[in-house]
Amino acid sequence: MKVIITGGAGFLGQQLATALLKNRQGLNFEQLILADIQCPTSPIEDSRVSCVALDLTQQGAADTLIDAQTDVIFHLAAIVSSHAESDFDLGMKVNFESTRQLLEAVKAKNSAIKFIFTSSLAVFGGQLPDVITDLCVVNPQSSYGAQKAMCELMVNDYSRKGFVDGRVMRLPTISIRPGVPNKAASSFASGIIREPLNGIESVCPVSPDLALWLSSPETVVSNFIHAVNVPAEKFGQSRIVNLPGITVTVQEMIDSLRDVAGQETVNLIRFEPDDAINRIVASWPGKFDISRALNLGFRADGSFSDAIHSFITHHGRAK
Amino acid sequence: MKVIITGGAGFLGQQLATALLKNRQGLNFEQLILADIQCPTSPIEDSRVSCVALDLTQQGAADTLIDAQTDVIFHLAAIVSSHAESDFDLGMKVNFESTRQLLEAVKAKNSAIKFIFTSSLAVFGGQLPDVITDLCVVNPQSSYGAQKAMCELMVNDYSRKGFVDGRVMRLPTISIRPGVPNKAASSFASGIIREPLNGIESVCPVSPDLALWLSSPETVVSNFIHAVNVPAEKFGQSRIVNLPGITVTVQEMIDSLRDVAGQETVNLIRFEPDDAINRIVASWPGKFDISRALNLGFRADGSFSDAIHSFITHHGRAK
Repeated sequence: MKVIITGGAGFLGQQLATALLKNRQGLNFEQLILADIQCPTSPIEDSRVSCVALDLTQQGAADTLIDAQTDVIFHLAAIVSSHAESDFDLGMKVNFESTRQLLEAVKAKNSAIKFIFTSSLAVFGGQLPDVITDLCVVNPQSSYGAQKAMCELMVNDYSRKGFVDGRVMRLPTISIRPGVPNKAASSFASGIIREPLNGIESVCPVSPDLALWLSSPETVVSNFIHAVNVPAEKFGQSRIVNLPGITVTVQEMIDSLRDVAGQETVNLIRFEPDDAINRIVASWPGKFDISRALNLGFRADGSFSDAIHSFITHHGRAK
Repeated sequence: MKVIITGGAGFLGQQLATALLKNRQGLNFEQLILADIQCPTSPIEDSRVSCVALDLTQQGAADTLIDAQTDVIFHLAAIVSSHAESDFDLGMKVNFESTRQLLEAVKAKNSAIKFIFTSSLAVFGGQLPDVITDLCVVNPQSSYGAQKAMCELMVNDYSRKGFVDGRVMRLPTISIRPGVPNKAASSFASGIIREPLNGIESVCPVSPDLALWLSSPETVVSNFIHAVNVPAEKFGQSRIVNLPGITVTVQEMIDSLRDVAGQETVNLIRFEPDDAINRIVASWPGKFDISRALNLGFRADGSFSDAIHSFITHHGRAK
């Protein structure tokens, strides 16, 4: 089996590569290609891995990546929400056009390829019911969400036509990411926990009342790998799955941080409203009906305190 | 005011041009451009009209059509549902890529342009509620529907960003179209009335129980022109409108035909199930909540019998 990860240098790409190489879920493969705009490095030294620098927005780039021997593509490459909002043209190129070219390459070379596409809860927005179901309208209020939603439709239709075997994973907001803040509007959802745990001040740009739909990176990566094994026919008339998450308000996140790390740590969070971020993040829903995802065998996180403990276990804590 | 109609040689393009030139709804303009892949002719001789042959799938074609003086574009150019299903690549080019290039040209030249985009009830499919509301998921089961749905998202996001002033009209199935059958999966919805009225046999490929969501061409054209006059802010967080229609089963259509034209005419209809057409058409919803459209000032048809009388008035009846 030959597996490709686009966005292989990114956080989720590296986590996914680690999980695959450690064979955490029994997906056996002979070759793993990590592709990104700057050449990734493998998180673990392993002869099965090769790393390539590739700009997927360039005409023909997808064709150089995919061949008839490819079995699975995890397409994680994207620019994040605030970046796509500030540079619309780049967002269309990276988030939409690259996906289209990958799908065209699959269609031309091997339509049996399983194409795991990472979408986002950012496809939702505007007037919404309290709980998002599979029958809920997609009405993105950001260019990132619009581009992801366009790709979802494409993956669905290419799959219906038999041009690819697509699986669309709509990700909750990922928390807690290790590392440093990024341009995602949701960057604070990791920052307000990660920075204080490391003794650093963190700015929260949204109200404590805001409800977020969260998943730990470990659970998301495990669900990515599970997506490969779901039989195509089980998806029915849509390849799109709202991945399981948990509903947590910013205040509840902070309360969990206090429980785990104490008030002194919580004192490092400063509230400083940012309208641009708030407008994007507040348009995302905070609660989902995940029965379909659970029926398909995807799994949910435990509590947010568990996520904090897991972060400390995996990434340590400066003191 | 300078107005462009793409698909200007098509049935709706010609009807719309006629309505505009006859000044039926008080839209004053100095210039009307009819564009199509083969050069249209104006339905009425009028010095304000110019006609151009233009393949909008060609790089740069949209740029030659649109200039800073353009005020309104009615983008009707498309290939129909069965055609987009049998030639996927052409559908992506004509139905999706052309729209994208038009939007890019508008963004570059004059973002105040009102862009009236014709979408379709074919964006709906799969598991659906009995009545479609504005909060209902889009899940197209045809490439035509998928391409239209992708364009809807684009028009919405370009509008949100202020790159265009878009208005997306989701059309019911149009009945009764004059002329000859086309490659639309819904072609029969006009054919089973039009052909018998002209003394010609017509094949109905679907069950008499099938409920259709219909609008007469006159009402759709009137709603197109109305769309220009709706203030942008009235659309709220989505530029998409499910245009008003009426719910009629195939049997009710035939009953209306009998009332208007007699049993002898009805005898010219022959049922011959066609799985390919049925699969597409049966995935479309038959009933909508149109309160939003009515609030925005769009109008609904009367009964289907009225539509038959109107067809006979406008297009006559062979005997």
